[in-house]
Amino acid sequence: MNKSNKNRAPLDYIPPDIACAADYEALAQAFIPADILAYIAGGSGHDITQRSNQAAFQHWAMTPRILADLKDANTALQLLGQRFQHPIFMAPVAYQSLVHPQGELDTARAAEATDSCMLTSTLSSVTLEQIATRADPARWFQLYFQTRPEDTSALVHRAIAAGYQAIVVTLDAAVQAPGIRAIRAGFQLPDSVKAANLIHQHPDVPIPRNGQSAIFNHYRQHAPSLQQLQQLISESQVPVIIKGVMHPEDAQQLKALGAAGIIVSNHGGRSLDGAPASLSVLADIRQAIGDDFPLLFDSGIRSGSDVFKAIALGADAVLIGRLQLYSLSVAGALGVAHMIKLLREELELCMAMTGCASLAAIRATALQPTLSGY
Amino acid sequence: MNKSNKNRAPLDYIPPDIACAADYEALAQAFIPADILAYIAGGSGHDITQRSNQAAFQHWAMTPRILADLKDANTALQLLGQRFQHPIFMAPVAYQSLVHPQGELDTARAAEATDSCMLTSTLSSVTLEQIATRADPARWFQLYFQTRPEDTSALVHRAIAAGYQAIVVTLDAAVQAPGIRAIRAGFQLPDSVKAANLIHQHPDVPIPRNGQSAIFNHYRQHAPSLQQLQQLISESQVPVIIKGVMHPEDAQQLKALGAAGIIVSNHGGRSLDGAPASLSVLADIRQAIGDDFPLLFDSGIRSGSDVFKAIALGADAVLIGRLQLYSLSVAGALGVAHMIKLLREELELCMAMTGCASLAAIRATALQPTLSGY
Amino acid sequence: MNKSNKNRAPLDYIPPDIACAADYEALAQAFIPADILAYIAGGSGHDITQRSNQAAFQHWAMTPRILADLKDANTALQLLGQRFQHPIFMAPVAYQSLVHPQGELDTARAAEATDSCMLTSTLSSVTLEQIATRADPARWFQLYFQTRPEDTSALVHRAIAAGYQAIVVTLDAAVQAPGIRAIRAGFQLPDSVKAANLIHQHPDVPIPRNGQSAIFNHYRQHAPSLQQLQQLISESQVPVIIKGVMHPEDAQQLKALGAAGIIVSNHGGRSLDGAPASLSVLADIRQAIGDDFPLLFDSGIRSGSDVFKAIALGADAVLIGRLQLYSLSVAGALGVAHMIKLLREELELCMAMTGCASLAAIRATALQPTLSGY
Amino acid sequence: MNKSNKNRAPLDYIPPDIACAADYEALAQAFIPADILAYIAGGSGHDITQRSNQAAFQHWAMTPRILADLKDANTALQLLGQRFQHPIFMAPVAYQSLVHPQGELDTARAAEATDSCMLTSTLSSVTLEQIATRADPARWFQLYFQTRPEDTSALVHRAIAAGYQAIVVTLDAAVQAPGIRAIRAGFQLPDSVKAANLIHQHPDVPIPRNGQSAIFNHYRQHAPSLQQLQQLISESQVPVIIKGVMHPEDAQQLKALGAAGIIVSNHGGRSLDGAPASLSVLADIRQAIGDDFPLLFDSGIRSGSDVFKAIALGADAVLIGRLQLYSLSVAGALGVAHMIKLLREELELCMAMTGCASLAAIRATALQPTLSGY
Repeated sequence: MNKSNKNRAPLDYIPPDIACAADYEALAQAFIPADILAYIAGGSGHDITQRSNQAAFQHWAMTPRILADLKDANTALQLLGQRFQHPIFMAPVAYQSLVHPQGELDTARAAEATDSCMLTSTLSSVTLEQIATRADPARWFQLYFQTRPEDTSALVHRAIAAGYQAIVVTLDAAVQAPGIRAIRAGFQLPDSVKAANLIHQHPDVPIPRNGQSAIFNHYRQHAPSLQQLQQLISESQVPVIIKGVMHPEDAQQLKALGAAGIIVSNHGGRSLDGAPASLSVLADIRQAIGDDFPLLFDSGIRSGSDVFKAIALGADAVLIGRLQLYSLSVAGALGVAHMIKLLREELELCMAMTGCASLAAIRATALQPTLSGY
Repeated sequence: MNKSNKNRAPLDYIPPDIACAADYEALAQAFIPADILAYIAGGSGHDITQRSNQAAFQHWAMTPRILADLKDANTALQLLGQRFQHPIFMAPVAYQSLVHPQGELDTARAAEATDSCMLTSTLSSVTLEQIATRADPARWFQLYFQTRPEDTSALVHRAIAAGYQAIVVTLDAAVQAPGIRAIRAGFQLPDSVKAANLIHQHPDVPIPRNGQSAIFNHYRQHAPSLQQLQQLISESQVPVIIKGVMHPEDAQQLKALGAAGIIVSNHGGRSLDGAPASLSVLADIRQAIGDDFPLLFDSGIRSGSDVFKAIALGADAVLIGRLQLYSLSVAGALGVAHMIKLLREELELCMAMTGCASLAAIRATALQPTLSGY
Repeated sequence: MNKSNKNRAPLDYIPPDIACAADYEALAQAFIPADILAYIAGGSGHDITQRSNQAAFQHWAMTPRILADLKDANTALQLLGQRFQHPIFMAPVAYQSLVHPQGELDTARAAEATDSCMLTSTLSSVTLEQIATRADPARWFQLYFQTRPEDTSALVHRAIAAGYQAIVVTLDAAVQAPGIRAIRAGFQLPDSVKAANLIHQHPDVPIPRNGQSAIFNHYRQHAPSLQQLQQLISESQVPVIIKGVMHPEDAQQLKALGAAGIIVSNHGGRSLDGAPASLSVLADIRQAIGDDFPLLFDSGIRSGSDVFKAIALGADAVLIGRLQLYSLSVAGALGVAHMIKLLREELELCMAMTGCASLAAIRATALQPTLSGY
Repeated sequence: MNKSNKNRAPLDYIPPDIACAADYEALAQAFIPADILAYIAGGSGHDITQRSNQAAFQHWAMTPRILADLKDANTALQLLGQRFQHPIFMAPVAYQSLVHPQGELDTARAAEATDSCMLTSTLSSVTLEQIATRADPARWFQLYFQTRPEDTSALVHRAIAAGYQAIVVTLDAAVQAPGIRAIRAGFQLPDSVKAANLIHQHPDVPIPRNGQSAIFNHYRQHAPSLQQLQQLISESQVPVIIKGVMHPEDAQQLKALGAAGIIVSNHGGRSLDGAPASLSVLADIRQAIGDDFPLLFDSGIRSGSDVFKAIALGADAVLIGRLQLYSLSVAGALGVAHMIKLLREELELCMAMTGCASLAAIRATALQPTLSGY
């Protein structure tokens, strides 16, 4: 892959040739260097799960209805005590400076402008405080447990101090599966992009003893114990949500532990290659935790009809990951805001044509399996 | 896309290289400018439903029978008090002057010549009266509700005065989903092509208030209320048929409201992209409304075997949309008449080989699912 | 298509580059003119059924067994009082002079040499008597009912006089669906190739009255009535087998009428395009007529494993159609004999590896559905 | 195919561009001459089973779990009284000198270095004794029954004398189906490569009588009778395992005969072309023989997730065939050891992400069928 590949500078206007939110993916090819694009677009391993995440949506069709009353139709929702105009949130995407000089700052401005909720990553390339002071979106903080407990606590305290309204603990990334596409492209994090929130941490990393499995060792260092998780939940001043849930029993156990909600996600296909599509486990997990427990969905969404289908299968709201980066690379805050606006309009179009006047009506709508994924 | 793309003038003879009705689709590529073709051939969104409409037919096979008595075999049917020689009708296609200078006038001549029934669109490019005076096919009028009730009433009165024998209300197009293919091709309705029936209408369109959803607002302006629909049905001097039905409960509700019949259709994939294939909902809808309620089918038909399958799954008759425009573009009235003749012969061939002496015998025939869509 | 396409003269030796029976199909491309090849290789319509005939075999896998006793393993069978060394018969293929100057004469020599049974077509390009005098294979005569009953009777009497041991009535071709591939290739029967058995017939063909369906009329002229069929069966001195059966009820009715056996076939995809694969209806038909009623299978066989699968699903023997013509075009009688020998060895290999010592053991073997047609 | 195709000499270092074990397959194309590669990569017949072996893994997804305790996670297992660090064994691959001058000697060194178990083939290109004296891996001996019983006995005695800890009898290769790919590539065993263990055997091969089936005759010569098999089992000083089992009843019968274990395998698609994927019969066979009977799996494994899935469906351990040759061709012992190491790490990654702390935990894990093989 060509790292010195010439790529276009971000636009300061909305590109005219965008006909739908998904178009940002194609357009971004010109704005993101090839090695970085391989890292972003690819999943872990051979992208099997990454591809199946998107394909899963094609196994469902939405049934048109023509006699509905849409007088008061809207996309609003209530979640964890907050009211949102629509269910399209910004997934916690790391290192956003990789694709735009303003990085997470522009994403935050777009989230504010479009009434979205921003999930700031532990691995953000500007600090969580900068994000909170430069823009004022609804915001939650995504937490990776750190090797030293005191580092984890410090992150939580900083987030709450900066006005983050919830903690989102990601549990599906204790070990990292390499992405073959990124490896082949020679991707490495450039020196100019850093995990800004973690810049003063220098934990001692224990060296594995001879014969020990490097992988199991790594897991033991980076996965919190159940006790650590429970302590965080019980001591937190804000709701704690768990991200990376793919099994009904895990969902039930987390609910029992006191989690305020869960996010069904396979990390956009960046965790276990060979995991099922997130969409394919969604309905069973909603069934397991009951209708009222907060449940968000992540992985594979590229259109308003995808949002519709995730909600119909049980999600309260959805997170947008790759499209966020693609639109950011093309036109910064403007691009991200435009992408969110398009997704919302696409969702509204599906609602109007299926006779759904509310997100609750979508949830009550039966999708229809397609004959063969179209 | 190349709008100034050289395209062939319509022929005044039947093209010699047509081996089946579907061949008009390929041949039309040379007769229709690229941007207009994108608009006609494409569906809404990414053509997902448009493609699945056609693919759905491949999931069914017809079982040959060899011992039937075909002495009195024929394709005739009785519908809404009218007798038709065959079940192949002309779908209400808008703006037919886009592909041939004679537009709907030639389609009407072809319908008359082939004993077909023509459904004239509200958006025809010549007036409904011209169509009725220049040719005398069996004819029904397709109605879009207008923003002002008096405009809707006027259309209905004009249609009845001009001898239209039924009103077909389309309900699946209150909001219009853009077609990505047409957008990319830069399609716009040329100044020379107008909605001839609506030329004197100048309704005041209310401006949405700030923050209101443009899509839900648009829906509210263009979808009739249940009361308006019921009033039309009860006051009409001719049968009122509803087009765009995709759900068994909508079909039942329309029957209860007094509709004279329904048309199962997803608008040829031009309404909700991501809707199921029309064929895939047909049997359930027929089941829901009973054997005797008039039910027509629309979306995806390209051959006589497609007609056979739609009838076997519950349709009384079918509407031909895109093939109508394709054959019109190639050879005007001659082309359309030839296309209808070919479809009818293809249907008769299927009937002979499956031992069906009547449309009723087709309905009683069990199709066989194919292993994998062939 | 290029009719004057240079093609190779038939070989007088077995081609060295044949690794399996199916290889004759690829090799034949060089020996058969393009227009004739289009006619032979294609099915009716768009070849949908022709393709599905072959694809259907891929939906079944054969399960290996490793502990069987194969001491007396063989492929012999008893059918209609005749004993055959193997179940691979020659389908009644018309006009074989199209691909080799010796036509059916060479096919007959190959059938004799390989202990196969030859089904001679009514439309053979040399007379049924010549076939019987130049070679002496086991042979059955395939009968198309003629417009005049006396012509039909004459054919039957000639066949019996010439030593044909059974009459095979084809019932699935009363109307002929055109093959799009052959039409596009401009195929027409050359003047030099004639239906040698029918050369003195000049029936008056009634002209359809205005408005009558040409297709239904044609059917009425060429399909025998049930009475005619029953008369043939009851008066015949040799067993009468019916070819073209695709429905269990037709099979049962034919058994009740006194037919000596049936051939499950969709005419190699040359009759109703859109019919199911012959293989997909085989098991139900066997089930309907019981284990002991003679049942042959035709359509799609290209290998010994295909033969194995057809037998496992209920066939007593199988007919080879297109491979017969392909091998004939490449190397005349030698080619056909080689092809039959290869098929038989391929079948024996499958039997050895699945532990089947006889055709009856194959029938008792459960095939296993593949996950997705491989 | 080009036999004189220039190919690279084996490396004496681990190639830097390997991102996963499966990458050795692509890299090996440059190291193995084309005709030999066709022989190795291809299966029997048209590679239908060979391809389906790999495709079958894609029909299953692994469900991520996030709350497991992996404190004592490991990949160890106990089998036939031996303890192994991991379940990834070396399949008995014949004639390894075809791809590397050191052949099986290097494979043995790699097995020793990675704590794998090596299954030495009867058809090894260096003698079983050389393998045992040059390296000291855990090792089992794969046995083909010879035409003369005394030759079979001699092989068994030599193997036991050389420290082989089990006898693995292959029963699915009594007749050999030719591989079309290898035939077309003109593959023949070079004079320089010999079955080193059999070099002094000169059995009289009986000539088939006229009219006898060559295939059934060959089978009778090379397949042991049940009595021969039972005698071997009862007299053997080491456990006897049977390889090539694809049917639950065969597995049960072998268990009853006293076999110490079985290997579910279709010979990597090199035996019956058209057999099901080995993976697709695995669960039923495990079910038939009970949880505790030793069962290994072979055919199609290319990654640690494949290993995981085979274990989840019932295998105790797995055999690696083609990857063994591919990595051997690229970098000899180093390559093979690296490949095994990568497979093991890939397996550990799957275990960590699915919350499995042991192979027993994998077995208890429910896989999830994918919607359409991804």
